[in-house]
This record gives sequence, structure tokens and C-alpha cells, in this order.
Amino acid sequence: MRFEDLAEAPCSISRSLAVLGERWTLAVVKQAFAGTRRFEDFLAALGISRALLSNRLERLVEAGVLRKAAYESNRTRYEYRLSEQGLALYPVLQALRAWGDAYLAPQGPPILYTHASCGGSVDVHLTCADCGAPIEAHDVDVAAGPGVRASRPS
Amino acid sequence: MRFEDLAEAPCSISRSLAVLGERWTLAVVKQAFAGTRRFEDFLAALGISRALLSNRLERLVEAGVLRKAAYESNRTRYEYRLSEQGLALYPVLQALRAWGDAYLAPQGPPILYTHASCGGSVDVHLTCADCGAPIEAHDVDVAAGPGVRASRPS
Repeated sequence: MRFEDLAEAPCSISRSLAVLGERWTLAVVKQAFAGTRRFEDFLAALGISRALLSNRLERLVEAGVLRKAAYESNRTRYEYRLSEQGLALYPVLQALRAWGDAYLAPQGPPILYTHASCGGSVDVHLTCADCGAPIEAHDVDVAAGPGVRASRPS
Repeated sequence: MRFEDLAEAPCSISRSLAVLGERWTLAVVKQAFAGTRRFEDFLAALGISRALLSNRLERLVEAGVLRKAAYESNRTRYEYRLSEQGLALYPVLQALRAWGDAYLAPQGPPILYTHASCGGSVDVHLTCADCGAPIEAHDVDVAAGPGVRASRPS
């Protein structure tokens, strides 16, 4: 199977990875959340090659994660902004942040993310939409959903 | 910057991506959560090359995400099980699942993840640890944490 084929897999994790799961892609998204918008600023922040950055930005635009818009002052250059679909990736980044803080930051978190209005830290939770209980992997049942049934002949 | 250098970045998202952010790595982790343990079973489930799978499994073992253990029946072959550190990745996978369900599953979720004890669906939340409010990206302040201060001369 080619990596790109994950986009067609009957699994939303695989489909998300087809968009996000290549080297540097989520680092580009992270940088966009940090407020970076312009090619040269992504380049300076990430320290990757122009070709690689260009590829990742274009693919994120194609996938609808970033919107490409001309600068107000100069129609020949573009900036990249998170779309609504891109902003919806914040829980993915915070889940990676929480895991990194827990396991890869022996001297403590390098960056503190806090609730602007009260200063509390950001928690990432899985809960049951019905009963509200916290959920871990062993609490979860898995079954085929409508997106699988829809792709089968009826 | 090389991708591997993200492991030393003063950012837990970057450090997590150094471990998880290559093609196929999170697909291997996802498969481990689905109960796959043996090399041949990962191979059959993912349809990737033996060399690539071997590389990803070994790197996940080195990173402490998977534990490698000899089969009970045969000391020369190994199985791969999620460590505590690996199990702690479940919110990352569920955040990717929720995003894929929302934006990449026009016919509905291909797979339903439900709370085994009540049948409710699995929600992924960001909340404030102090006041309990739901949190989005624009609610968050960012500041240097102890892991950055520790790496500077005092």
C-alpha cells in the first residue's frame, strides 16, 4: 500500500494521517497556530528546504487545512492561514503537546499553554458523550459505522 | 534542520513529532491499539514493506512506545506491545479520528468508537484544568516553561 492510499482507508485515523502524517507537515501546522503566515517566516522558523516547505504548504492548501491569500500590499506573494478545518486540528496538537510534556520533557514543559482568562493549564480529555465518564482505550468498543456500510453494495 | 533535530527542540509538540511524525509511524501505533502484536500481522494489516515496518517498529521500541517481548512459544520471534507511554497516545489517535470523522468522512464515520459500558460516543475535549471551561486555540496564552528556563545558563 502506498502512503497516499490511506486517504481511502475505511478509518478516519488513516485518512487524517494521509493528510498530516508526513515528516514536517504537523510542524508546519503547529507553526501556523503560532501565528506564522508567510513563506519566508515558515522557512526561518522551521529551517527546512524551500522545496520541502513549498510541498507541505501546497498539500495543506489542497487538503483545506490552510487558505492561501494574496498579501494586501503585493498580489504576487501569498500568505497561509488556518481554515476552520485547520483550526479544528488544535486538539491533535495539544494531545501531542501533552504527551511530549509527560514523556519527553524531563526538565519540565518547555512551553506553558494556559487559559488566557484564568491562567489554568490546558487539559486534553477523552470522555463519553452520553454519561460523561473519562475514557481510556480499554473502555472503548469498536464497530463498523455508516461510512463503511455506505461503501458496501446493499 | 534535520527532522531528527526536532527531538531537541524547546517544544513538546516538536519532540513528539520527532518520535511519531514520520510516514506510517502513527499507523503502526494505531494498529497496535487495534490489538496487532506480531510482525507478520502488522505487515498484513498495513501492506507496507518489511524493511519499512521493521524500521518503524524498532524506532517505536527505542522511543519506549512499544515493548518487544519474545513469544512464549518461540524465543527467536518477538511481539510488540504498547507500553504505558504508548497507551498514553490514545488521545492523539482519538483527536485524529475526530478530525477525520468531521472533515474526511462525508458518508459518516467508517468506524464507531463507543464507551463499552453505555454505548456513548467518544468525545475529545480541551478544558481548563482550573476553571473547567472548554478551550480553543484563541483562548490560550503561551509562555516559556521550566524546560526552557532549565536549558539556559542561570
